[in-house]
Amino acid sequence: MSETLRIAVIGAGRMGADHIQRLNTRIHGAEVAAVVDVDLARAQAAIEGIPGAVALADAEEALNNGDVNAVLIATPGFLHEDILLKALARDIPILCEKPMTPDAESSWKIVQAEEKLGRKRIQVGFMRRFDAEYAALGDIIQNQELGELLMLHHQHRNPTTPPGFTNEMLINDSVVHEFDAIRFFTGEEITSVQVRLGKATKNAPAGQHDPQHVLIETESGVLADVEIFVNAKYGYEVGTQASFEEGTVSIGGDKGPYTRTAGRWGGNVTPGFEERFGAAYDVEIQAWVDAARRGEIGGPTAWDGYATAACCEAGVEAQKNGEKVAVKLNAKPALYS
Amino acid sequence: MSETLRIAVIGAGRMGADHIQRLNTRIHGAEVAAVVDVDLARAQAAIEGIPGAVALADAEEALNNGDVNAVLIATPGFLHEDILLKALARDIPILCEKPMTPDAESSWKIVQAEEKLGRKRIQVGFMRRFDAEYAALGDIIQNQELGELLMLHHQHRNPTTPPGFTNEMLINDSVVHEFDAIRFFTGEEITSVQVRLGKATKNAPAGQHDPQHVLIETESGVLADVEIFVNAKYGYEVGTQASFEEGTVSIGGDKGPYTRTAGRWGGNVTPGFEERFGAAYDVEIQAWVDAARRGEIGGPTAWDGYATAACCEAGVEAQKNGEKVAVKLNAKPALYS
Amino acid sequence: MSETLRIAVIGAGRMGADHIQRLNTRIHGAEVAAVVDVDLARAQAAIEGIPGAVALADAEEALNNGDVNAVLIATPGFLHEDILLKALARDIPILCEKPMTPDAESSWKIVQAEEKLGRKRIQVGFMRRFDAEYAALGDIIQNQELGELLMLHHQHRNPTTPPGFTNEMLINDSVVHEFDAIRFFTGEEITSVQVRLGKATKNAPAGQHDPQHVLIETESGVLADVEIFVNAKYGYEVGTQASFEEGTVSIGGDKGPYTRTAGRWGGNVTPGFEERFGAAYDVEIQAWVDAARRGEIGGPTAWDGYATAACCEAGVEAQKNGEKVAVKLNAKPALYS
Amino acid sequence: MSETLRIAVIGAGRMGADHIQRLNTRIHGAEVAAVVDVDLARAQAAIEGIPGAVALADAEEALNNGDVNAVLIATPGFLHEDILLKALARDIPILCEKPMTPDAESSWKIVQAEEKLGRKRIQVGFMRRFDAEYAALGDIIQNQELGELLMLHHQHRNPTTPPGFTNEMLINDSVVHEFDAIRFFTGEEITSVQVRLGKATKNAPAGQHDPQHVLIETESGVLADVEIFVNAKYGYEVGTQASFEEGTVSIGGDKGPYTRTAGRWGGNVTPGFEERFGAAYDVEIQAWVDAARRGEIGGPTAWDGYATAACCEAGVEAQKNGEKVAVKLNAKPALYS
Repeated sequence: MSETLRIAVIGAGRMGADHIQRLNTRIHGAEVAAVVDVDLARAQAAIEGIPGAVALADAEEALNNGDVNAVLIATPGFLHEDILLKALARDIPILCEKPMTPDAESSWKIVQAEEKLGRKRIQVGFMRRFDAEYAALGDIIQNQELGELLMLHHQHRNPTTPPGFTNEMLINDSVVHEFDAIRFFTGEEITSVQVRLGKATKNAPAGQHDPQHVLIETESGVLADVEIFVNAKYGYEVGTQASFEEGTVSIGGDKGPYTRTAGRWGGNVTPGFEERFGAAYDVEIQAWVDAARRGEIGGPTAWDGYATAACCEAGVEAQKNGEKVAVKLNAKPALYS
Repeated sequence: MSETLRIAVIGAGRMGADHIQRLNTRIHGAEVAAVVDVDLARAQAAIEGIPGAVALADAEEALNNGDVNAVLIATPGFLHEDILLKALARDIPILCEKPMTPDAESSWKIVQAEEKLGRKRIQVGFMRRFDAEYAALGDIIQNQELGELLMLHHQHRNPTTPPGFTNEMLINDSVVHEFDAIRFFTGEEITSVQVRLGKATKNAPAGQHDPQHVLIETESGVLADVEIFVNAKYGYEVGTQASFEEGTVSIGGDKGPYTRTAGRWGGNVTPGFEERFGAAYDVEIQAWVDAARRGEIGGPTAWDGYATAACCEAGVEAQKNGEKVAVKLNAKPALYS
Repeated sequence: MSETLRIAVIGAGRMGADHIQRLNTRIHGAEVAAVVDVDLARAQAAIEGIPGAVALADAEEALNNGDVNAVLIATPGFLHEDILLKALARDIPILCEKPMTPDAESSWKIVQAEEKLGRKRIQVGFMRRFDAEYAALGDIIQNQELGELLMLHHQHRNPTTPPGFTNEMLINDSVVHEFDAIRFFTGEEITSVQVRLGKATKNAPAGQHDPQHVLIETESGVLADVEIFVNAKYGYEVGTQASFEEGTVSIGGDKGPYTRTAGRWGGNVTPGFEERFGAAYDVEIQAWVDAARRGEIGGPTAWDGYATAACCEAGVEAQKNGEKVAVKLNAKPALYS
Repeated sequence: MSETLRIAVIGAGRMGADHIQRLNTRIHGAEVAAVVDVDLARAQAAIEGIPGAVALADAEEALNNGDVNAVLIATPGFLHEDILLKALARDIPILCEKPMTPDAESSWKIVQAEEKLGRKRIQVGFMRRFDAEYAALGDIIQNQELGELLMLHHQHRNPTTPPGFTNEMLINDSVVHEFDAIRFFTGEEITSVQVRLGKATKNAPAGQHDPQHVLIETESGVLADVEIFVNAKYGYEVGTQASFEEGTVSIGGDKGPYTRTAGRWGGNVTPGFEERFGAAYDVEIQAWVDAARRGEIGGPTAWDGYATAACCEAGVEAQKNGEKVAVKLNAKPALYS
C-alpha cells in the first residue's frame, strides 16, 4: 500500500453526497480532498466538517490541484466523457459512476483513450458486483455447481422515478444494471435485446411506458429477461432467479442465495459468528472509534459489564441446582444513569 | 473529530487478530499502533504489513508508549481486570471484549474505578447491539409498536466449542450475550435465572452438559428463555422471537424483523437502493481505494462501460420497435482481455 | 370394507356442526344418521338438507336408534364420561373430541371400561397427529434422521378466547394438544410439568393470566416448553421447533418441515404434480360430482378447452419461428357467456 | 342433491388410476361404476376391491351400461373427441382431462356439439383453478386489491418427462396449464404467443429443446411469460408472480399468496384452527370412518385420553405453584400396548 488517496469528488448531488459521506466516515485509506459542483454552494455544503477539503466549481481546477491524486465522478452521465478524458490524461485512479457514458460511440472513445494510455485507470460503478449475493451467484455459475446456466429471470423495481426520467433512461439508467449483471454472471457479451411494452400502470409520468419486458440473449444462447418496473410504488426490489441444468438459485429475496436442487430447497447455514456478526463488529468498532475521538464511548458501559457478570454468577449457580436463582445488583452509580 | 486513534490491541488470538484486520482495512479514523501478546511471535505476525505498528509482549509497555492513545482488550476474560485498571489510570478510550470480567465482584471494582475517574472510558464488546436486526427489534420494543413486550424466546447455537470450554463457560461466554440482549431489549435488569439440564447430546466434550434451557425473569416480569446448544453441529444460529400484546417479531432467520400482527405476517420492503446496496457501495469504494493505492483498479473496466452502453443503445431501439435488436461490439482491445 | 357408517353426532355446537358438514360433503363411506343436542332446534337446523337424518334431544335415544352404527361425540368435555360409557356398552365405533374427559380419575374409568370390553372402540380427537407437518416431524424423530431428539419448543397462539375460558381451560383445552403432541413425537410419557406466569397481556378476560410458559419433561429427559398465549390477537399460530443432535426442524410456519442440518437450511422440493395438486384434484372432482348431481358443471367449460387448444396451436407454431404468433378464436357461443 | 353419481372412468393409466382411487376413497356422493381400458387387464386391476364396479375394454359399452350416469375421461388427448361426442349424445355429466382435444379444429367441433345440445355437460380438467393459492390470486386480481394487473411471470418445472414427450407436447400438455391459468387470472382471451428457444439442457431427450421461454399477450395488453423447463431434475415447481400497479403477489412457493405492497412484504396469518387444521380434521375423520368400517380405530386411544388428562391435572397444579409437578400414571393396560 502506498499513500492515502486524496480524492476529488466531481458532482455533489445525491450519489456524490453519498460517496463523500462514505469516504469521510467508513472507508479506510482515503480522504476527500476536493468536491466539485457547478452549484458551488452545494459543493461547500458537502465539505462541511471535512478537514483539508476544498469546494470548487470546476472539475479541471480540481484535477490540477496538487493535493488531489484520484477522482470519483458522480455527475450525470452525459457529462462523463469530458472529465474522463481529462482525468485519463493525468493518469490517476478514476471511479466513474454508471453509465460510463450514455452511448456506445462516446464509450468507445474512452476505451481507446485508456488503451492508448496503456493501463487500466477507470473503474465503472456497477456496484452490484460487490453485493454478497451477486458475488455468490456469480461463483455458483462459474463453478458450474448446478451444471450449465440456462436462463436468467430478473425483477428490477423502483418505488418511483425522479422528475424527468424518460423512457430511454428506463433502459440507460435502470436496465443498464442488468446488462452488466448478465455479462458478469455469464462472462459473455450480449448479442440481442428485445423490448415489449405491455399493459401500462397509470402511476407513470406522461411519456413513460412502465413496466416493460426486456428479453436478452448472450453469446452461448442464454435467455435472460428483465421485468423493469420503475413506478412499482411498494418499495425497491431487485432480484434474479437463475435456472441451471440441475436446479435453480434465487437472490434478492432471501438471506443469501436460495437453491433448489436434488429434491431440496434452501440455503447455507451461517457457519460462525464472524459471518453472522462481522458487519456488527465493524459498526461497533467504528462507533467506538468515532466516540473515542470525541472523548466519549459509543456503546455498552462498564455497568453493563457488571450487571451481566452478576447474571452469569446466578446462572452458574442455577445450572447446579435447577432452581430459580435471584440476581442481586449493587445500586447503580450516577455515572451510568 | 480530533486526531486519529492510535490503538494498542492487547491479545493477538482469534478475536484480537480479527479486530487488527478490521482496524487496518475497514475502519476510518483509527490505526493499529501496537499489538501485545505474551507470545511475542504471534504479536509480530499480527503487525506484518502495518506501517508504524510495534509488537510487544507486555501490556503496560504498550500503555506507556507515547504513540498509543487508545486500547482494545481482546485477551481471555480472566486477564481483563488488571489491564482495565491500568488503562483507566491513563484515562484513554478502552474497548473491552466481553465479558468485562468473569464475576460480579471484580466487575464491580472496575465500575467503582471508572466512577472515581468521573467519566465513562470503557465500552464493553456486546456487539449484538450493533446488529441491524437487534437494533430494529429494540426499537419496536421501546416504541411499543405492538403494545407491551410479554415474552422473549432465544436460540443460541454454535456448531462446536473450542477445547476446554466448560459448563460454566456455557453461561459466562455464551449466554452472557443473551443476558445483555435481554437487558438491552427490555431496558430492565434481570431478577432471576433458572437453568434446566435436559437430554444431552453425545457430541459434547466430557464434563459439559449440552443443551441447556435457561429461564430468565426481568424486573417487570417478562419471561425470557434461552435454548443454549453449543455443539449443534449444523452451523451457527442466534435468534429471538418476541411476543407482544399485539403480535410477534422474530429476528435471526429472515432479512430484518419478521412480524405477525393484525392478521398479517411479513416484514418491511427495502425502501430504496441505498438501503439495498449500501454495503455493496462500501465494498466497492473500499476495493477501488485499495486497488488505486496499488496503482490498479478493483472492479468493472472501461470495456464494461462500453459494452453496456452498446446494450443500452440496442435496448432503446428495441423499445421502439418491439423486435429483437442485435448488439454489435468492436473487437476487445488487448488491455481488457 | 363393510357397510357405510351411519353416525350419530352428539352435540351440534361449533365443532359438532363442523363435523356434520364434513361427514355430509367430504367423507367417503359415512353418513349422518342422527344429530343430538339438548337444544333440539339446533339439532334440527344441523340436519337440514341431509336425507335420512333425524334430530334428537337425548343421546341415549340416538344410541338406541337401529339406524345408528357409530357415534361422534362433540359435546363439552365434562359431558363425555356418561356418553362414552353408554356407547362402549353398545360396542360401536366412537370418535370422541378432546379432552376424552377433563380429569385423570374419570379418564381412567373409561380406560378400564374399554379394557373390560376387550377391544379398542374409542378414538380421541387429537387431530394434529393427522396434520401432514406433524406426521412428517414425527417420522424424522422416530427414524432418528438427525440423531436423538433433545428439545422441543412450541408456540400455541389463539387470537382470542371464547367467553368463560378460565385459567384451567388454558391448560385443559389448549395445552392438552401439546401434551398429546409431545407424547406423539417422543413416544414417551410426560414426567413433570412446570408453569411460570410472566408478564400478562391486558387483553385477557378478568381472572385469566395470559401468556404462560409451560416447561415439560419426558421419561428420557427431553425438555419441551410451550408458550401458550390465547389472546394473541394477530391470528392463530401453532408451531414446533425440534432440536436434535444433528440439526433442527421447524413446523407450523413453512410448507412442510424446515430443517437446519449439515450447514444447510431448507426443506424438500415437491417431487411431482400429484403431491403439489393432489388436494386441488380432490376439490375439483368433488366440485364436479356435486355440480353433476344438480345437473350442472362445476369448473372449466368446453369453451375453455377450445380456447386453450387454439393457444397451443399458436404456441407450437411460435416454437418453430421464434416470432409472435397471433391466436385466433371463433366467436364465443351464447351458451358460454 | 339427487342420486349418487355412478361413474364410468375411461382410461386406467396414471391419471385414470389416480382418479379411481380418489372417487373410491375420498369423494362424497360418487362411486366408480365402470372402468374402461383397451388393456382389459389394467381395467380389471383398477376395479379390484371396488364393490359393484365392472371392467370393460370398450367405452361405448360403458356408456350403454344402465348403471352408469356420468363419465370421467382420462385417456390420451387424441382419443377424447370420439368419446366426448358419444357422451354428449347421452346427455350425461362429463369430466374430461386436459387437453379437451389437442387442436383448435376438433375442440371447436366439441363446442358446437355441446352448443347444439343446449346445456353445458363438459367440465375440462384444469385443476389449478381449484388450488387454494390460484383461487386466492384470482380473487386479488378480480377485486383489484392492488390495482390493475400488469404482468405475470410463471415458472413451470418438471423433474423429467415421460418417454415420447415431444417438443409439441411441451406446449400442448405442459404450457396448456398456463394458457388456462392466464385466461382464468385475467378473464381475457390470449391474443399472441411467442416462443424463444435459449440455451438447452443436455438432460432433455433427443429432439426436445428444453427449456423454452414463452411470451404471451392478452386482450388488454397484459404480458405473461412462462419459463417452461420439463427436465429440471430437482423436483416439481409451478409458480406465478403477478405485478400490479400497487404491488406484487407470488404463489407457488409460500403458504398462500405472498404480497409486496405499501412498504411491506408478507401474507395473511391463519385466522383460526379450522383453517389451519381443516385438512387434518378431514384426514382424521376419514381415517376413523375407514378403520371403524373394519372394526378398528384409526388414531389416538383412550389411553392417550387418560395420559393427557393426567398431564392436565399436573399442569393446573403447576400453574398455581410455579414449581415442577410430577405426572403420575397407572400401569398401562395390555389392550393399549
